[in-house]
Amino acid sequence: MKTQVCIVGAGPAALLLGHLLRAEGVECVVIERQTPDYILGRIRAGVLEEITVSLMARLGLDARLRAEGLPHGGFNLADGERLIRIDIADLTGKQVVVYGQTELTRDLMAAREERGLEVVYEAADVALHEVESDAPYVTYTKDGSEHRVDARFVVGCDGFHGPSRKAIPERVAREYLREYPFGWLGILADVPPCNHELIYANHERGFALASMRSETRSRYYVDVPLTDRVEEWNDERLWDELAIRLGPEAAAHMTRGPSLEKSIAPLRSYVFAPMRHGSLLLCGDAAHIVPPTGAKGLNLAASDVHYAAEALTGFFRRNEPDRVAAYSDTALARVWKSERFSWSLTRLMHRFPEDGPFERAMQVAELDYIASSRAAQTAIAENYVGLPV
Amino acid sequence: MKTQVCIVGAGPAALLLGHLLRAEGVECVVIERQTPDYILGRIRAGVLEEITVSLMARLGLDARLRAEGLPHGGFNLADGERLIRIDIADLTGKQVVVYGQTELTRDLMAAREERGLEVVYEAADVALHEVESDAPYVTYTKDGSEHRVDARFVVGCDGFHGPSRKAIPERVAREYLREYPFGWLGILADVPPCNHELIYANHERGFALASMRSETRSRYYVDVPLTDRVEEWNDERLWDELAIRLGPEAAAHMTRGPSLEKSIAPLRSYVFAPMRHGSLLLCGDAAHIVPPTGAKGLNLAASDVHYAAEALTGFFRRNEPDRVAAYSDTALARVWKSERFSWSLTRLMHRFPEDGPFERAMQVAELDYIASSRAAQTAIAENYVGLPV
Repeated sequence: MKTQVCIVGAGPAALLLGHLLRAEGVECVVIERQTPDYILGRIRAGVLEEITVSLMARLGLDARLRAEGLPHGGFNLADGERLIRIDIADLTGKQVVVYGQTELTRDLMAAREERGLEVVYEAADVALHEVESDAPYVTYTKDGSEHRVDARFVVGCDGFHGPSRKAIPERVAREYLREYPFGWLGILADVPPCNHELIYANHERGFALASMRSETRSRYYVDVPLTDRVEEWNDERLWDELAIRLGPEAAAHMTRGPSLEKSIAPLRSYVFAPMRHGSLLLCGDAAHIVPPTGAKGLNLAASDVHYAAEALTGFFRRNEPDRVAAYSDTALARVWKSERFSWSLTRLMHRFPEDGPFERAMQVAELDYIASSRAAQTAIAENYVGLPV
Repeated sequence: MKTQVCIVGAGPAALLLGHLLRAEGVECVVIERQTPDYILGRIRAGVLEEITVSLMARLGLDARLRAEGLPHGGFNLADGERLIRIDIADLTGKQVVVYGQTELTRDLMAAREERGLEVVYEAADVALHEVESDAPYVTYTKDGSEHRVDARFVVGCDGFHGPSRKAIPERVAREYLREYPFGWLGILADVPPCNHELIYANHERGFALASMRSETRSRYYVDVPLTDRVEEWNDERLWDELAIRLGPEAAAHMTRGPSLEKSIAPLRSYVFAPMRHGSLLLCGDAAHIVPPTGAKGLNLAASDVHYAAEALTGFFRRNEPDRVAAYSDTALARVWKSERFSWSLTRLMHRFPEDGPFERAMQVAELDYIASSRAAQTAIAENYVGLPV
């Protein structure tokens, strides 16, 4: 098969990019290892920045997002019994939208046929070839036979564990990694949220987050040692812990229910550079990971996709080949700022085993300062809602 | 001798407090171990916040400060060849004043006689007694004989090494300490500054600061390992290092000259709580140390003195005894915010031996973000110029 752009992976970043390219008349094919149901079964983030919402709107695929998404004009930082509200609508004039990543992916999937976006699912042994040349190609096996997609560009949207990043040779690669000494234990349950906005809590027993996917589906987290196993946390123990860490006000409004999903995810900050090498571009988790504090993961993938779509459309449709060359620097500038925000909010809201009384006092002082300063609140709000693209 | 308030130490905080109390008709005596010349020989900070300037103005002792002080409406953060200007005048409507701590102390000393502020210099073996009672007293020896000052309150303005803090029993004390893995090597020289504003530089070789005391006297610093001795740094080596770290633009305007003073000071964050116990109040370095990044030391002492003067005047002149009880919490709230700012600016502008590529990338990302965000610049500016008292 021959196409202009071969996209590896079929998660939300890949489908978003595929639709954006199709909308501009660029040929593309999406190659995915898993089944559609597997992808829709993955529980992921649920807070969308303006950039993500606007890309869906540009595609005309935002009808359900607008109908079912919950606009949030603020969120809360809790420190013991104190709740510091960050009024992002007032501070920035913008808001975020709570809408599960799974739902976004479903909307993008549903439009495949109508928009002529070709996706190959259940492609095994996906491999990238000749990415340093102008004629890269992707091979995979499906239904027992080998397939090959020739393209002018390959875009890796295949996540942290996919093959794309590994196709960039070590001699040009730089890696930046920070691992955190805890994981997030998450629970998804069909119960109404304890608060109409998110609450990030830094309690002496550890971090907690009260989040949601809708008005009837809640998502909660606590941080746990990396040595904990999910079997050690039955639902009751987890609800009890949440009630303590989120504080009495949130606990009073918390509805408990059986877990639909419960898992522990490690926290990691990771950046791979460059995000383009030869004819290969990387988007989203293939190039970088943020800790989930601040909900930047999907949104950062969306801004990568925005830059990649601009670069590729420039190349194929507007005779602007230089935008592809600039893609890595352009995307990384925003990636680093989101990495910084996610890292600093993680730093502020978690108890680190290596911290002494002075470091803890700095957390309290920073929360005191945030509570008292409009400038500090604005800095947090503008990062939370998403820095300019 | 009997008085209402006995002040231990005769540095700028002590004299400022003494004058404020005298102006309100409160009796006080200042007890100091050193000579006036020794105190004036100490080289200290030189950037005054609005609170410090306003206290001098309230006392009517600001004539020389207004005539000779240099108002600064901004300062600069340098990162390699980039200079990020923080326009504090535009961002906050306020400014700081460059005026050496030594000059401020000289002005306060000169007004002693006229204002009837009694200072005992060269008092040896100063000791505090019965501070948990309503009748504390201070003893010292001078000219071979023992003296005793009875007072209703004792205020410790005697710095980090003075006896006051140690008079608070361990059972009530809490200490917070962070030591930094480098010191500041400072040089004072009678040469014009390389820039009309301060430059804080984070260079790959380390930190540098271009500061000044006047239009003809400059103060520069580089950070050095704590194992370095000042003898290893002759003037030429230090000027060479400054020229590299401050970058080509500053180096081109840097005038070299012989050092009037050169020394290495360790960097430390330290807070002692409570700042009041019984009849003893602590002000300034007696209770807390900040790293010099951001020039908060003297200004924090000034805001302590402001709160202490309000508390003691309330007690003696306005029948408001509760203000003394509230002193520690009131002063500490602002102390912690200044500690946070000094710590975070130190963190941002120095290379830490324990930092890896990710942490360094976070510094660059933070500087990029600051360069691009008015909210981030405002947060820095409002801290630099001094948070509300």
